[in-house]
Amino acid sequence: MFELVRTDGRARAGVLHTPHGDLLTPAFMPVGTQATVKGVPPRDLLELDAQMILANTYHLYLRPGDELIARRGGLHCFMSWQRPILTDSGGFQVFSLSEMRKIDDDGVTFKSHLDGSMHRFTPEKSIRIQENLGADVIMCFDECPPPNDREYNAIALARTHAWAVRCRQTHQRRDQMLFGIVQGGVFRDLREQSAQFLIGLDFPGYAIGGLAVGESKAEMFQVIEWMDAVLPEDKPRYLMGVGEPTDLLRAIARGVDMADCVLPTRLARHGAAFTHGGRINMRNRAFAEDDRPLDEECTCYACRTFSRAYIRHLLQADEMLGMYLMSIHNIAFLLDLMRRARAAILEGRFAEFARGWLARYERACQTNL
Amino acid sequence: MFELVRTDGRARAGVLHTPHGDLLTPAFMPVGTQATVKGVPPRDLLELDAQMILANTYHLYLRPGDELIARRGGLHCFMSWQRPILTDSGGFQVFSLSEMRKIDDDGVTFKSHLDGSMHRFTPEKSIRIQENLGADVIMCFDECPPPNDREYNAIALARTHAWAVRCRQTHQRRDQMLFGIVQGGVFRDLREQSAQFLIGLDFPGYAIGGLAVGESKAEMFQVIEWMDAVLPEDKPRYLMGVGEPTDLLRAIARGVDMADCVLPTRLARHGAAFTHGGRINMRNRAFAEDDRPLDEECTCYACRTFSRAYIRHLLQADEMLGMYLMSIHNIAFLLDLMRRARAAILEGRFAEFARGWLARYERACQTNL
Repeated sequence: MFELVRTDGRARAGVLHTPHGDLLTPAFMPVGTQATVKGVPPRDLLELDAQMILANTYHLYLRPGDELIARRGGLHCFMSWQRPILTDSGGFQVFSLSEMRKIDDDGVTFKSHLDGSMHRFTPEKSIRIQENLGADVIMCFDECPPPNDREYNAIALARTHAWAVRCRQTHQRRDQMLFGIVQGGVFRDLREQSAQFLIGLDFPGYAIGGLAVGESKAEMFQVIEWMDAVLPEDKPRYLMGVGEPTDLLRAIARGVDMADCVLPTRLARHGAAFTHGGRINMRNRAFAEDDRPLDEECTCYACRTFSRAYIRHLLQADEMLGMYLMSIHNIAFLLDLMRRARAAILEGRFAEFARGWLARYERACQTNL
Repeated sequence: MFELVRTDGRARAGVLHTPHGDLLTPAFMPVGTQATVKGVPPRDLLELDAQMILANTYHLYLRPGDELIARRGGLHCFMSWQRPILTDSGGFQVFSLSEMRKIDDDGVTFKSHLDGSMHRFTPEKSIRIQENLGADVIMCFDECPPPNDREYNAIALARTHAWAVRCRQTHQRRDQMLFGIVQGGVFRDLREQSAQFLIGLDFPGYAIGGLAVGESKAEMFQVIEWMDAVLPEDKPRYLMGVGEPTDLLRAIARGVDMADCVLPTRLARHGAAFTHGGRINMRNRAFAEDDRPLDEECTCYACRTFSRAYIRHLLQADEMLGMYLMSIHNIAFLLDLMRRARAAILEGRFAEFARGWLARYERACQTNL
């Protein structure tokens, strides 16, 4: 399923083969929570050469319902996206409901954020939903505790491991890869214990979960390094919920193959654009008469066609087109960064590339502040 | 500027030549109030073969400002739309502010709906703004009174005529056509008097204003028939603010060449789609598992690619993609109707075409209720 094509330092270039085509890694996956990457039509994602997108089990289970989607032929058919899809397990969303959910060793009972109705997820239920959705890669149902609470992490980890066994046993569809998720907060022994346990279950891929949820950047990269040392070389490593360009490069430098995040589209809706001159807030008055594209080094439709002045006007006027253009640009920026990182790894110059890119971007962000 | 290619009964097929290309008439112009057709990127409008769009002087004057747009090279450059544009005069919007504006014989003082700041439009100011925006067709500054108030219409008409003279005198740009606007409510003598007065000023085109603002459909079509009898054959006739498919066909049957309306995009945002099976409300539960396209006879991206079930889901989930797909479909529907009407006129079978089309559509709308 996964071929490791080349390593360069700890950075890896690979290919993940799925029933809906190949994913060239390192790869960033845009998030399509409700079966749509917010504001971006599938044909635009193809134009940007997005290879794989993520969809959310919790949201699709509640609306329109995984069984309705199954009757439509699955998520690929339903949303007209014929490239690979990954679904999360619903765990992260359910645990994020805080006051509206109750955890026991068998599963989680929670209140819908849509209508307050009560629902229950168990490992078996999560897998059944994900089989209905029919993504190429699906995830084990896990618990994501506060990263610095050791006691809670130890308890939650036992649950996550027991649930991983149940997910593995329940999962039937041979055309889907089920990934395990390493948890354990910022604690080395827990993380290593988690990795070893999941490796024992022999998953086709491993996610590093429970990061980018409140711990420091140093802690996050430390955990990624520990995982790089213990996770098998011949399986893909997926860092969940990370989308800052600098974090992505630093994660790739530490052996990560895949990542996903709502950041590019969420920032877009708030008026922020990634550029090679750093992140900029397009609502800023300074751009009112700026005839340059969002990013002079970008070739996306927004940058080929429109000025900052126009895009700022659209954002100020709350026009949908503004969010659309910002969204495709921010996704284009991250996908382009991944392609450049992969090319650098294949040519054995990743360290130099990453150093140069990070220095320039971070200096520019500093200047923009 | 305008060639009348063929008449078929009272229906007309023509070509309006503009500096940014030809408009084949009868034509429907999508409205891009704030320099964007809501939710629809310009390249999608090109794909749908929209020929000309409308932009609003009032909105663009307030934000981002006509002078800012002029410094960007005008509206075509600013919004990256290189086909023809028409701007209204700002009159209709300003008069719609009701409590926030004060009319005198020289112009109108009004409060911005954005920040409450005070502004003044005169005929000269409206033309200056429209010259800054640089549309291919611009409009005289007129007053649009309640259609059934005879006394008010008589007073307003004198003002509208005096303002038409001032607009004609002020307008300098030779690369823009300035159209006159016939007013006079539902009153035949006022309407005919208005047409005669404006014809005396020899405008390159005439709009029929003050309709679709509260009068009955019978009154609207009656006014259009009166105008068809008095307006010159060799000049384009533009019916302002009409976009119901059935109204468009009936207006074309009465000698109208051009029309504009926010209806297709506004309906889209409210979940309603034009289809050959009548207008449908896509939020309806009945479409939750409907795998057909919005309209089986439509070839737009939405209909080529997505099911009603998926589009309904997007609308229920308040996803931007839903409004985008509905908007391009509704615009596609009207543009297609115009192309079919033109083909029928050129082939001398318009009456038959319109009769058949209206019977089918209205029967279907009846059934959908």
